[in-house]
Amino acid sequence: MLEKLYELLDEFNDEIISIRRHLHQNPELSFEEVETAKYIANYHRELGHDVKTGVGGNGVLAFLKGDKPGPTVALRADFDALPLQEETNVPFKSSVDGVMHACGHDGHTATLLGLAKALNRLKDDLAGTVVFVHQHAEELPPGGAKAMIEDGCLEGVDVIFATHLQANVPVGKIQYRSGAIQAAPDRFDIKIQGKGGHGAQPHETRDSIVIGGQLIGNLQQIVSRRLNPLDLAVVSVCSFEAKNPYNIIADTAKLTGTVRTFKENVRQAIEKEIEQVVKGTCLVSGADYSYEYTRGYPPTVNHQEETEFVAELAKSVPGVASVEECEPIMGGEDFAYYLQHVKGTIFYTGAENPNWEQSYPHHHPKFDIDEKALLIAAKVLGTATINYLNGTK
Amino acid sequence: MLEKLYELLDEFNDEIISIRRHLHQNPELSFEEVETAKYIANYHRELGHDVKTGVGGNGVLAFLKGDKPGPTVALRADFDALPLQEETNVPFKSSVDGVMHACGHDGHTATLLGLAKALNRLKDDLAGTVVFVHQHAEELPPGGAKAMIEDGCLEGVDVIFATHLQANVPVGKIQYRSGAIQAAPDRFDIKIQGKGGHGAQPHETRDSIVIGGQLIGNLQQIVSRRLNPLDLAVVSVCSFEAKNPYNIIADTAKLTGTVRTFKENVRQAIEKEIEQVVKGTCLVSGADYSYEYTRGYPPTVNHQEETEFVAELAKSVPGVASVEECEPIMGGEDFAYYLQHVKGTIFYTGAENPNWEQSYPHHHPKFDIDEKALLIAAKVLGTATINYLNGTK
Amino acid sequence: MLEKLYELLDEFNDEIISIRRHLHQNPELSFEEVETAKYIANYHRELGHDVKTGVGGNGVLAFLKGDKPGPTVALRADFDALPLQEETNVPFKSSVDGVMHACGHDGHTATLLGLAKALNRLKDDLAGTVVFVHQHAEELPPGGAKAMIEDGCLEGVDVIFATHLQANVPVGKIQYRSGAIQAAPDRFDIKIQGKGGHGAQPHETRDSIVIGGQLIGNLQQIVSRRLNPLDLAVVSVCSFEAKNPYNIIADTAKLTGTVRTFKENVRQAIEKEIEQVVKGTCLVSGADYSYEYTRGYPPTVNHQEETEFVAELAKSVPGVASVEECEPIMGGEDFAYYLQHVKGTIFYTGAENPNWEQSYPHHHPKFDIDEKALLIAAKVLGTATINYLNGTK
Amino acid sequence: MLEKLYELLDEFNDEIISIRRHLHQNPELSFEEVETAKYIANYHRELGHDVKTGVGGNGVLAFLKGDKPGPTVALRADFDALPLQEETNVPFKSSVDGVMHACGHDGHTATLLGLAKALNRLKDDLAGTVVFVHQHAEELPPGGAKAMIEDGCLEGVDVIFATHLQANVPVGKIQYRSGAIQAAPDRFDIKIQGKGGHGAQPHETRDSIVIGGQLIGNLQQIVSRRLNPLDLAVVSVCSFEAKNPYNIIADTAKLTGTVRTFKENVRQAIEKEIEQVVKGTCLVSGADYSYEYTRGYPPTVNHQEETEFVAELAKSVPGVASVEECEPIMGGEDFAYYLQHVKGTIFYTGAENPNWEQSYPHHHPKFDIDEKALLIAAKVLGTATINYLNGTK
Repeated sequence: MLEKLYELLDEFNDEIISIRRHLHQNPELSFEEVETAKYIANYHRELGHDVKTGVGGNGVLAFLKGDKPGPTVALRADFDALPLQEETNVPFKSSVDGVMHACGHDGHTATLLGLAKALNRLKDDLAGTVVFVHQHAEELPPGGAKAMIEDGCLEGVDVIFATHLQANVPVGKIQYRSGAIQAAPDRFDIKIQGKGGHGAQPHETRDSIVIGGQLIGNLQQIVSRRLNPLDLAVVSVCSFEAKNPYNIIADTAKLTGTVRTFKENVRQAIEKEIEQVVKGTCLVSGADYSYEYTRGYPPTVNHQEETEFVAELAKSVPGVASVEECEPIMGGEDFAYYLQHVKGTIFYTGAENPNWEQSYPHHHPKFDIDEKALLIAAKVLGTATINYLNGTK
Repeated sequence: MLEKLYELLDEFNDEIISIRRHLHQNPELSFEEVETAKYIANYHRELGHDVKTGVGGNGVLAFLKGDKPGPTVALRADFDALPLQEETNVPFKSSVDGVMHACGHDGHTATLLGLAKALNRLKDDLAGTVVFVHQHAEELPPGGAKAMIEDGCLEGVDVIFATHLQANVPVGKIQYRSGAIQAAPDRFDIKIQGKGGHGAQPHETRDSIVIGGQLIGNLQQIVSRRLNPLDLAVVSVCSFEAKNPYNIIADTAKLTGTVRTFKENVRQAIEKEIEQVVKGTCLVSGADYSYEYTRGYPPTVNHQEETEFVAELAKSVPGVASVEECEPIMGGEDFAYYLQHVKGTIFYTGAENPNWEQSYPHHHPKFDIDEKALLIAAKVLGTATINYLNGTK
Repeated sequence: MLEKLYELLDEFNDEIISIRRHLHQNPELSFEEVETAKYIANYHRELGHDVKTGVGGNGVLAFLKGDKPGPTVALRADFDALPLQEETNVPFKSSVDGVMHACGHDGHTATLLGLAKALNRLKDDLAGTVVFVHQHAEELPPGGAKAMIEDGCLEGVDVIFATHLQANVPVGKIQYRSGAIQAAPDRFDIKIQGKGGHGAQPHETRDSIVIGGQLIGNLQQIVSRRLNPLDLAVVSVCSFEAKNPYNIIADTAKLTGTVRTFKENVRQAIEKEIEQVVKGTCLVSGADYSYEYTRGYPPTVNHQEETEFVAELAKSVPGVASVEECEPIMGGEDFAYYLQHVKGTIFYTGAENPNWEQSYPHHHPKFDIDEKALLIAAKVLGTATINYLNGTK
Repeated sequence: MLEKLYELLDEFNDEIISIRRHLHQNPELSFEEVETAKYIANYHRELGHDVKTGVGGNGVLAFLKGDKPGPTVALRADFDALPLQEETNVPFKSSVDGVMHACGHDGHTATLLGLAKALNRLKDDLAGTVVFVHQHAEELPPGGAKAMIEDGCLEGVDVIFATHLQANVPVGKIQYRSGAIQAAPDRFDIKIQGKGGHGAQPHETRDSIVIGGQLIGNLQQIVSRRLNPLDLAVVSVCSFEAKNPYNIIADTAKLTGTVRTFKENVRQAIEKEIEQVVKGTCLVSGADYSYEYTRGYPPTVNHQEETEFVAELAKSVPGVASVEECEPIMGGEDFAYYLQHVKGTIFYTGAENPNWEQSYPHHHPKFDIDEKALLIAAKVLGTATINYLNGTK
């Protein structure tokens, strides 16, 4: 049955690529993916799948029922684009000013549609159900995953799989990791309320810039001193706003930044520590402050058994040159929410073309992927689906 | 003769006030004081004074030659306004949006015009010449004084006097100080050129905000450690610009601030020390920087003999309740330039109305002066002029 | 054969415990373990083993040749004590003032001697050779391991195993970890050479305490900013010496601290980064410095196959309640050197008595172990030896 | 009468010098000046003066009543030495190991004794009383002045004069200053109570060295930000004690330093600000602290009229080459206490020999004075005494 699947996917490869190019040329921002959702829904409807639209927003669900009884596998692909002006020279370059598929979601969706078509042809032999979870708004918290789950997208689902195309991993390579694979990307906003005044009379002020400077330094020690050195975490102050005339001492200073963690207890500890540091630092100068900590997605924690299941089967998939364990990534991914409800795993599919002089990182205006990766991704996801449904697992 | 002067000034008091109100209602920004200059020139022409306009820009000179031979006294008043939206409720409130006489220059000019009229009436007995130096652009470096001097406004001048109305000194009080009375108000601009990047990957960046935070702290030690504690100085970082998305580490940070000093060697030392601190701090993180130090006006250093001369005579001027030595002020004043060329002094005339619930500082949208101060200022300046010309000195 | 081993060890358990108590009562400091070495050598000689003494210092090697041909397994136990005054109430308390077995090395050695006796009885069936590596001076760099290796202790050895008794892990638990299990514990010494002077005249000094304060802060950012967040590391300034009269500004300040890493490239990067930070920080104030970085043991990196081998077999050893993967430990261990030359692994044997109200950490004057752990340790090490020699592996 | 005084002093000059050398050779530490006090008392007794010993400790008072009625002038000289090992090569080098007159008190006392002898000869013409205040323990707080005053040394005194020999001012020069001439030299002691622990486990500690580092930085801003830039002040952390093994994070850190001020309100403000800074800084890390602020002498504030009186008369004293106003000195002087009770002034007498290659600062093991200064000091003090008593004032 896997042989058949691979044949079908090879056959659909051109279509998969052309879907990806169509999506790439017509990107839509997070929470505004109306046309993309329609396109996806139509594709599934034409295959004869049951389709639910408007799931938790612009999300689309499609259902493929195999002819034999069995469990339910969900496959997820995200389909939103980013607010970037594309700077590549590809012929299917974004036709929308300031919007670009610069994270591979076009590829994720094309892969899943192509796979849907192939699995559909194998319906007779499928022992169970496949739910195609086409998720909107992965790029922008609160993201689409949470709302789709609340809207029932995981009902009856036994396991969920997904992949992410990686522009910095050579095509042919599959990466997996049990446990935390992506971080919780949180945000903090601190406002120091000192007291402004004339630059020549510091004693009548509470200099928010001086306080802010101390705060930046003090915040470094959260990672260097307060956390267990074995707990991975980042605390970055990314923005400092205190623009003033050259001779007016700053009344306020705004610091904004990000926190990255892999464990709930570390995440909580940092949220608390930052406040402790801000409180003490402001007390030094008798200044006030406000502090807001906004949680992004949770850490993405792959389930061990499902991860090993995929890692193992990937070794035999045609086109896969190597399968390796990877380090966690400090970025976030709202696939995390699905994993809080059902078992599953997200793995990385290498999409770096070895012949390119330079590859650009995700979210870069010159980001691109090697389209060979789509077929490989489809084959691995498809193998996982069939093996899971048809009892190899 | 002083009795006669005081009588004339009392008589012209209403006119002085009405001139001040006219000017207040029609403020003009530094270097744009075209109408004010015309108004001043006309006033002097009507008195029959020789007038030179366009002196070093919008500056106006008027000459009153006494009938007897003698030295030349210059009296200086500035006449530019500030880029502020007035928030007082006076009936003669600024009629120009965003422009306001919030530093008393309207009063200085009205005082000098009224005094000119009075001295004109005493011409027969005046032993020497009075030069009325109406200076534009005191508020905005490079200021008007320097250009007026280069344009010859001090030619033949033996001594120069000026006063500044002080909204935080009670009306009736005259303040003087030999030596440094106002600071050199300089400016510095530092740009830290680190290396931006993703907030989750600090190791691939050189975090300009962290470097800037250290820099702010390190700069504090110039005043606390590097300078002789007996040398008065201020170093204030007033602006810090590093605005970024919450998850992008800052590529650059711009720090702008002011330095206040009273001595040339201290000024030079600080200019050099800042660079040393910036250089070392950037080296810590391998970042680059640019550094610019822009000198404002020099320190205003009153000449001792002329200061004591005015302080002494002020005691006997009607309306003066007390004469006291004051502390230096950390702000700058381009009267400094005149004192580099001729002997002279600038003194402060109290202009705070004791009945007001609250008085507002200079450069505040609610700044106001007690108009009684104008008459007192005119009498002290007039007495200094007559005493100087007619030999009491 | 394993059954027989376990029976023998059960039989020798009292002896193992009494050996441990004897050693505990007679501790010797690192590099001074003369009597302990003699005791060990005698024990092996009485068993009929070939013994080499004075190996790389006080090290002792003993050889047990099985009657069948096979590979060579080395088993290592360290036997030095610590400069601590014991504060326990055990009847076999240290009889030497200020010296104490507070890290379990007494237990390691007793375990290995007991195991030697048991394996000796199984000689007929042993297929290969066992080398008992009794190592001196583990507690004090440069340690005994390096010298023993240079003195040939690993000649002909195919694999090496060791265990460490852990006072904070419940007895019955075995912990393992592939890859880095203990850190490289390095040391740095920084001397800031400022310029002393009177406390009232900071401008004539270069204040070493102020420079030191900045340095402490700046060093925090090595971990928080310069390193990949995925790379575990610690940089701690542990000592700051600048003792002076209350009114004399510090001429010098001495900072001493430790660096812990698990990877060579991270170790090198930190050594370099510290110098960069010191250099820049001193430049800020025009001070000089000296900087010395002294490497301790390398990171202890267990070999994967051998680690999994021990982890797997431990599950079936009587007395072992659970076998689990553990986190790396930030402390160092000179077992690291052996692993640079031959395959092998060190695992942890739980030695915390669950009935004690409180257990004390290693190197604490009240440190103690549950002696039940010795038998378990002996059985796991013995099983590994037999399985390795007799081909289960 | 002044002519006569000068003649007498010239005549006694050799004796004055030999007294100074005797004292120099036999120095006694603060509060231990038993022999010196006896020597002084004897000298006055031989002159026939009433003498009180044991005044407020080792203090000595001597009274010279002029034959005519008039006011009472006190003249003060201190006579304690310092805990220093002398390193000069003078023939009258200290004969006491580790004790040295390195601040000129030997000269002050010799001057006053010589002057006493001269004034004694002029008794017939003296209109009033001279009180010779020989004060012990100036170098060591709480000093001798306070106790002598409490013991009545100022009873009936109208004015007090003193001089201090200055090794960095050329002989022939007299320096004066109205108002604050010496600072209040206070001391602070801060103990940070963090939580020690292993250098590899910072998260289980509260790192007192890191907290101390922040504290040093934060304290800089008291002078740079919190104080009026016109208020002279110094805050120096002079000692930082946190000595530990290289791998043990500091449990505590002790910071000791000095504060120098010239005004009571500034002094109070700094005492309070330090605590605020310590409190906030410790709060950042959740550490405890103790803080002690110990006042030294008050600021020495010369009275204006008496200062101008001495400055004026000094101009005509033989041997005085110039009289100039000086800057305040950041060191302290317990003459401050006398000035809190009666009018008076302390002035500086230059004692630097212009031919020496190098002069050493006060409190230096090589400190020395040009003995010519003694005669000049005696003449100025004597002139002030006579002029004051005999009505020129």
